[in-house]
Amino acid sequence: MTTSSGHTSAILASKVKGTAVYSTAGDKIGTVEDIVLDKKSNQIMFAALGFGGLLGIGEKYYPVPWSLLDYSEDKGGYVVPLNKDNIDKAPAYDLKDLVKHDGSLGDVRTTTYDYYKVSRDWQ
Amino acid sequence: MTTSSGHTSAILASKVKGTAVYSTAGDKIGTVEDIVLDKKSNQIMFAALGFGGLLGIGEKYYPVPWSLLDYSEDKGGYVVPLNKDNIDKAPAYDLKDLVKHDGSLGDVRTTTYDYYKVSRDWQ
Repeated sequence: MTTSSGHTSAILASKVKGTAVYSTAGDKIGTVEDIVLDKKSNQIMFAALGFGGLLGIGEKYYPVPWSLLDYSEDKGGYVVPLNKDNIDKAPAYDLKDLVKHDGSLGDVRTTTYDYYKVSRDWQ
Repeated sequence: MTTSSGHTSAILASKVKGTAVYSTAGDKIGTVEDIVLDKKSNQIMFAALGFGGLLGIGEKYYPVPWSLLDYSEDKGGYVVPLNKDNIDKAPAYDLKDLVKHDGSLGDVRTTTYDYYKVSRDWQ
């Protein structure tokens, strides 16, 4: 858990928000706009990524399993397994819908984890 | 996971920040100032509670295991097992030190979880 710099893997949520997000190819593709926490399981559910939008109007948020975000010291941001070409296919929602679970949207968490092929060992 | 209102137990980190914190006796004792995430384990490590301070000068932050925060719809805030009398004894740190782990501070996480007698099943 402890690194040679004396830091743990702990990070403040407020520091994560606004951090740049890069594709594996190295292009800046967006920003971490928020984090979705799961109160019941104590797990970090998603990073909510924003990839731009006209003055925020109609902007969709892309939930990405937190475990997929890989911090790069070099870039000063997170690298995620997405690129500009496949963003269009990724699950995206209005911000308020990221914490919902209902019939019309389906289960945001299941949809997202399935899309990214990330397993959860928590309910 | 799903409640009758169609919501999951998911919550946005940005909504948690600034939420009032009450003692079990019902007194407002502070505010959630930030959340400490554990990147490696995917767990929410702490809520960082602030209980005031002179214009923020010298304010200490009280890490409290996230699982101890119980949201009260009635109060519109979190209830924690702390009261004004025992806050002085709880572990408290500068905000920047909440993510550190070094010899002079000891292990913030172990100290805090031990103080609140909360078990962790994650490393």
